[in-house]
Amino acid sequence: MENLTRETVTYFDCGDDYANADIVVWGAPFDGTTSFRPGTRFGPTAMRSESYGLEDYSPYQDTELSEFAICDLGDPELPYGNPRRALDEVAAKTRAILSDNKVPVMIGGEHLLTLGAVEAMVEKYPDLRVIHLDAHTDLRDEYLGEKLSHAAVIRRCYELLGKDRIASFGIRSGLKEEFAFGKQNLKFHPFVLNFKLDKLLEEWRDNPIYVTIDLDVLDPSVFPGTGTPEPGGVTFNDLLKFVLPMKNARMVGFDLVELSPHYDASGASTAVACKVLREMLMLQGRSLRR
Amino acid sequence: MENLTRETVTYFDCGDDYANADIVVWGAPFDGTTSFRPGTRFGPTAMRSESYGLEDYSPYQDTELSEFAICDLGDPELPYGNPRRALDEVAAKTRAILSDNKVPVMIGGEHLLTLGAVEAMVEKYPDLRVIHLDAHTDLRDEYLGEKLSHAAVIRRCYELLGKDRIASFGIRSGLKEEFAFGKQNLKFHPFVLNFKLDKLLEEWRDNPIYVTIDLDVLDPSVFPGTGTPEPGGVTFNDLLKFVLPMKNARMVGFDLVELSPHYDASGASTAVACKVLREMLMLQGRSLRR
Amino acid sequence: MENLTRETVTYFDCGDDYANADIVVWGAPFDGTTSFRPGTRFGPTAMRSESYGLEDYSPYQDTELSEFAICDLGDPELPYGNPRRALDEVAAKTRAILSDNKVPVMIGGEHLLTLGAVEAMVEKYPDLRVIHLDAHTDLRDEYLGEKLSHAAVIRRCYELLGKDRIASFGIRSGLKEEFAFGKQNLKFHPFVLNFKLDKLLEEWRDNPIYVTIDLDVLDPSVFPGTGTPEPGGVTFNDLLKFVLPMKNARMVGFDLVELSPHYDASGASTAVACKVLREMLMLQGRSLRR
Amino acid sequence: MENLTRETVTYFDCGDDYANADIVVWGAPFDGTTSFRPGTRFGPTAMRSESYGLEDYSPYQDTELSEFAICDLGDPELPYGNPRRALDEVAAKTRAILSDNKVPVMIGGEHLLTLGAVEAMVEKYPDLRVIHLDAHTDLRDEYLGEKLSHAAVIRRCYELLGKDRIASFGIRSGLKEEFAFGKQNLKFHPFVLNFKLDKLLEEWRDNPIYVTIDLDVLDPSVFPGTGTPEPGGVTFNDLLKFVLPMKNARMVGFDLVELSPHYDASGASTAVACKVLREMLMLQGRSLRR
Amino acid sequence: MENLTRETVTYFDCGDDYANADIVVWGAPFDGTTSFRPGTRFGPTAMRSESYGLEDYSPYQDTELSEFAICDLGDPELPYGNPRRALDEVAAKTRAILSDNKVPVMIGGEHLLTLGAVEAMVEKYPDLRVIHLDAHTDLRDEYLGEKLSHAAVIRRCYELLGKDRIASFGIRSGLKEEFAFGKQNLKFHPFVLNFKLDKLLEEWRDNPIYVTIDLDVLDPSVFPGTGTPEPGGVTFNDLLKFVLPMKNARMVGFDLVELSPHYDASGASTAVACKVLREMLMLQGRSLRR
Amino acid sequence: MENLTRETVTYFDCGDDYANADIVVWGAPFDGTTSFRPGTRFGPTAMRSESYGLEDYSPYQDTELSEFAICDLGDPELPYGNPRRALDEVAAKTRAILSDNKVPVMIGGEHLLTLGAVEAMVEKYPDLRVIHLDAHTDLRDEYLGEKLSHAAVIRRCYELLGKDRIASFGIRSGLKEEFAFGKQNLKFHPFVLNFKLDKLLEEWRDNPIYVTIDLDVLDPSVFPGTGTPEPGGVTFNDLLKFVLPMKNARMVGFDLVELSPHYDASGASTAVACKVLREMLMLQGRSLRR
Repeated sequence: MENLTRETVTYFDCGDDYANADIVVWGAPFDGTTSFRPGTRFGPTAMRSESYGLEDYSPYQDTELSEFAICDLGDPELPYGNPRRALDEVAAKTRAILSDNKVPVMIGGEHLLTLGAVEAMVEKYPDLRVIHLDAHTDLRDEYLGEKLSHAAVIRRCYELLGKDRIASFGIRSGLKEEFAFGKQNLKFHPFVLNFKLDKLLEEWRDNPIYVTIDLDVLDPSVFPGTGTPEPGGVTFNDLLKFVLPMKNARMVGFDLVELSPHYDASGASTAVACKVLREMLMLQGRSLRR
Repeated sequence: MENLTRETVTYFDCGDDYANADIVVWGAPFDGTTSFRPGTRFGPTAMRSESYGLEDYSPYQDTELSEFAICDLGDPELPYGNPRRALDEVAAKTRAILSDNKVPVMIGGEHLLTLGAVEAMVEKYPDLRVIHLDAHTDLRDEYLGEKLSHAAVIRRCYELLGKDRIASFGIRSGLKEEFAFGKQNLKFHPFVLNFKLDKLLEEWRDNPIYVTIDLDVLDPSVFPGTGTPEPGGVTFNDLLKFVLPMKNARMVGFDLVELSPHYDASGASTAVACKVLREMLMLQGRSLRR
Repeated sequence: MENLTRETVTYFDCGDDYANADIVVWGAPFDGTTSFRPGTRFGPTAMRSESYGLEDYSPYQDTELSEFAICDLGDPELPYGNPRRALDEVAAKTRAILSDNKVPVMIGGEHLLTLGAVEAMVEKYPDLRVIHLDAHTDLRDEYLGEKLSHAAVIRRCYELLGKDRIASFGIRSGLKEEFAFGKQNLKFHPFVLNFKLDKLLEEWRDNPIYVTIDLDVLDPSVFPGTGTPEPGGVTFNDLLKFVLPMKNARMVGFDLVELSPHYDASGASTAVACKVLREMLMLQGRSLRR
Repeated sequence: MENLTRETVTYFDCGDDYANADIVVWGAPFDGTTSFRPGTRFGPTAMRSESYGLEDYSPYQDTELSEFAICDLGDPELPYGNPRRALDEVAAKTRAILSDNKVPVMIGGEHLLTLGAVEAMVEKYPDLRVIHLDAHTDLRDEYLGEKLSHAAVIRRCYELLGKDRIASFGIRSGLKEEFAFGKQNLKFHPFVLNFKLDKLLEEWRDNPIYVTIDLDVLDPSVFPGTGTPEPGGVTFNDLLKFVLPMKNARMVGFDLVELSPHYDASGASTAVACKVLREMLMLQGRSLRR
Repeated sequence: MENLTRETVTYFDCGDDYANADIVVWGAPFDGTTSFRPGTRFGPTAMRSESYGLEDYSPYQDTELSEFAICDLGDPELPYGNPRRALDEVAAKTRAILSDNKVPVMIGGEHLLTLGAVEAMVEKYPDLRVIHLDAHTDLRDEYLGEKLSHAAVIRRCYELLGKDRIASFGIRSGLKEEFAFGKQNLKFHPFVLNFKLDKLLEEWRDNPIYVTIDLDVLDPSVFPGTGTPEPGGVTFNDLLKFVLPMKNARMVGFDLVELSPHYDASGASTAVACKVLREMLMLQGRSLRR
Repeated sequence: MENLTRETVTYFDCGDDYANADIVVWGAPFDGTTSFRPGTRFGPTAMRSESYGLEDYSPYQDTELSEFAICDLGDPELPYGNPRRALDEVAAKTRAILSDNKVPVMIGGEHLLTLGAVEAMVEKYPDLRVIHLDAHTDLRDEYLGEKLSHAAVIRRCYELLGKDRIASFGIRSGLKEEFAFGKQNLKFHPFVLNFKLDKLLEEWRDNPIYVTIDLDVLDPSVFPGTGTPEPGGVTFNDLLKFVLPMKNARMVGFDLVELSPHYDASGASTAVACKVLREMLMLQGRSLRR
């Protein structure tokens, strides 16, 4: 018998078994509450394919992804038309990974999914802190009558975590009352990423930190592939420079959400999403080595 | 004061007031249970714009749309993430139109919405019959664990109406058990439209008839602009010839669903959807004159 | 001195000099009166590039294009915002080609341009007849207040030529009054191409015949690349079969208009336009040999 | 009778009646002299739809659009093939709005249309000044033999207004003689927007000021959706910072032109156009309150 | 330890292990000799994703794919710039599958790859016959000076197999000399699929038969997603009807080639390719059961 | 005889005869070793068409292209499936131009083609230096087993030229060992273009300099139309400022490679490529005048 084995496609060709992995990446193909232009459900697959055209070496960190033990679990099917069940599945997956003492990394999908991840994270880490990069506040109390909406996800996370435990960066769109709410209840640094993260990380040095990056924090020129492009955002280099200090923080997981490949005619948005993933995986890996 | 008035965009420039109209068209921009490629939420708007490039005269019926009193109500906002509430709004709108003795015409949006319309229709017309054109059976008992799914809509309608009151045409895709269910419980004429509709209309001559056209009954060559293209379908001329006998039936409403304009790079799918709408509106109008 | 010469791109690589050519092809990149979706200005260039991927042998006619002496003059710049001047330039170019006893072939661009060509043709051939293939009547007296409009071009040609000298085929869209006008004043054969052209060609056997093909006579499934797709049209094989008898007629020129490549994501419309051009050039060439 | 009312789509859902409005927005769907890539005729509609996905609150100005009385008149049909008639209709609409002491805001469409608006503005405001943002000089005496061309619009405006009454910013493309003309006869600040507008506004503090923004002043990375992308332009934040001082000027109207949505695969250009519209409407509204 | 396993994507979710499988599908992402529009390298992946939106039940054959033991090996990387090495890898893979007494099914990629498969097939089956469906003859002796070209693949196969052992169907494009060669040396049935395959299968009833389907045999209206669209082809139903008799033949493998997803804006071409794959896999499976 | 002459399309309408030209531009439509997303073969034609929409005057250099004698030779056909033969044809064309004492300018096509140009350049100029702008190192020893690959082209050039004779700028992607190789053997200035070129040009003031610009050195926001978008790059203004000092250097030729128009939905990438071409042609022309 010839021993023919299947060629599989994984993020950046990461091929570690689940049992051996320290970091576990998975895709969450769901955009069921997206109210404007849907399509982030195609994000996880698009990034997996695109990552094959990119190097696994970062000249920015002088590091190779192969230095870390990373497993890619693929993408489970999530139920359309029932956001609560989708969130339950996200929470269950996150909980399972955490219970094996591995670090969960979720690729969205829409931003609401972050709520499922944070629900599981906070069970394990009651003193969790969240770093939130985004163009939009996502602080509505409800949207079109629904509590479980991409536009309300950070408000829901706030209800789980409480005051001053979420730090939001890069925000440049929302209702007047959302901006007011953010200023009052979050660490709120809108518009650009000129904040020095080191100071916050010093304050939170003993806290487990979860990072949620809504990729539309990037300017639409850099990242057109999203459902609600919001001009006035940051460049890739801005974002990279901002997150680099995370290597010294106590990162316990992260997600990247809101890539919508159908609005990315050139593939450039998917490429930038992959490159953010590569750099974040390295930061997560380096954080574990501290 | 200059009396400047707003230019409004309506289907085929139909400008009758609601009070005077016999037929009321409205758009239902919802695709929240779409499991594969979303985008039918953009259908109603795309058809409205496209209809401006088309004539309101049909050489096929030698009739002009201006012969009928038609009002276009525009598109209400429907809640994403909650299919039951969306269906309730569809049913409410349909009920309101029916209570004013007008004929409701819904432009989807996804096929699940037809359930909301049929819920309201059957209240007014307990002996309702449904003519269903589609590429897919839509007869699942549930899909991804959900009862309210585009893939289950005809099954739900069947539960409301009972045996042999739905006639399905053009079907060419489904599970083995769905085909079995259809053959047993519906008037089921799969694959092509070579059935002579006159015979069925004779049988149902005293019944109010609602028509639901999932536009993917058309071959993807004719109608690529849909989320789940299913090769082996019918041409525009096939479809036109099939529905023409409806002018003599007791039509009490209809819907056109599943146009997804983002997959319609040329606009040809939107044009064919508009032309089906034009011909169906005329058939509905002529039905009222019988 | 190395004798480096420029590589030039011509339709199907036709490279005859003007002086030696019997047939002269040129492109007319103008769509200034297009009222719905513009873009036919890009047609001539797109077809030139696409023709490189196609064979110059026709298995349908068992003929090669290289059997004929064909020159490609390229595309002059036409003035936007002034349709009358654009038509004058079309007429002048056509007149010049005719005065050298060559056959003019124009690649549009929009259908209005045909008027300029016919103006020059009728000077040389007072007993000219026109065969017109189209989805639309193009018989309006004016459009948006303008006499010189793509929607009025056949009406303008009728005014030059008179009753029963234009034969229209494949029409399936227009105003009620246009259909009436066509039936009264043209040889009018709407909807499909099941008419046997031989009979008409027998009647017109002594007349010079100009052929104008609005490519939207083809069904949008075959030819999506046009500004006003009109479902219910003919296939490529229908069209080919229809025009083959022209080889025995007294063809004195032709045009192909209304390819709009931006609506042709796959290139298939441009390919079909090229293949129609190839077959028509062969028919024109064979006509000259009669 | 149920009181069903039509859902209408307006810019940012602005729903004031004409009679009550202070600011009147309308769309001018015309691109008849566009010589390269047409499509700006689709701009007004695209922006109207897109504005629904954006907030009506500006965190930059801490202002909501609902603070102002704004009416959206929709888009009249303009005649293709006759630029002079199109300009006459633009001038008539502008004149009507001005005669009711309201502020006209035009959404193009191509830049030539600005001439029609300025013709009407200068009748009411003989001492009018114009602030012009653009990538191109638009100072040709004629283009392809035509005086009424998008490439000549500022030259035509100059002929109406005279020397030093137009200030051009952001220009980075044109003929050598256009640059010379601009330097001699306009306030001409090419390339970037590092000019402090306050100084000019001080000089013009008693003059009524009309602002015309050709959106291609933005870099194509930010605003790809235009017919003639011109690299080397400004960012959204640059543009925003530049125009903010207008809140203290005597603004009497403005236009935004040259969005061509077909070249905007991601929707990001339309989003940026909408956001410029939102900020400009607020500046106009605040100007009225001075 | 939670037992989290990877979600993998396979054709129609076929999940049999290699060891247990009777039929082995694999993808060959190579288009290195494509001279016109490349992109078939993306075919195997696109079909794998698309097949998730399709049913695994065929109402045409009343059969489910799950009745057969099918393994999907994924897509090996093939070397660009060296067609001979790519063919060697195709031959090696095919040889390995054959040596385990399994049936190889290759998803292209470009048509040249078929040569590698046939090289291996003929080693095992010296009396191999080939059924070839295509729009193009592919019978050139060389193309742009190269023997190993997509345009020469059937000529190369002919050199391996000899006279009258290849049957070509659906051909409608080629050089004059290719048509002559085909008529002389192959069983050559150009243009349409009106040939009754049963007769040929009767003649070849003892021969092992390999089927190669260049999907451009389908009309570009049905299958626009290919580099060289060739109007005048067949419909999906034509193709299906043509191949159905294969269930009784001695099929020993097949390939589907030339899907180029980038020219398939709607996904309809990929869907039709998947549906052909589904039907062919069932025919292959049923052939094994004879 | 009317003296009708062919309208030809050349870069920026440059119409000088070969015999009179000082600078000779030609297009090399080849992407046969492209391993990820092909399509640069369409670059030369796309740029030629696009250049018609741009001015031939540069306000940056206050220079018009018409001041220089430039000939456009068009695009020869290059053999797919045989990179070595393609390189031989590139080298032969370059050699021929050089032997007539003209300056060769090549428009790619893929980056491997630069090797053919450099092979010919170094024959004439043994002390050649190369300035290399790129996002990628292109320093692999081989790629997928092939020495002749786009990913190895600078390594191959290095083997021809030797240590410290290539200066690489803008690099931000590669293997760890490529970065190490670059730092050791090239003048290597990765990431951004903040290096002052004057200093290097002073060092190389007596050397003939060939410039190769892989346009993906630009950020994907500015230049999405490429097969391997690499975030973190430079703007058009950065690039322009960087190359301006070349006017005083001894430039002996240059190439622009890796535009892939199919990934350039808006045309903005092609516009920026053209504008880089215009500025580089002027710098080359001014270099000849020193």
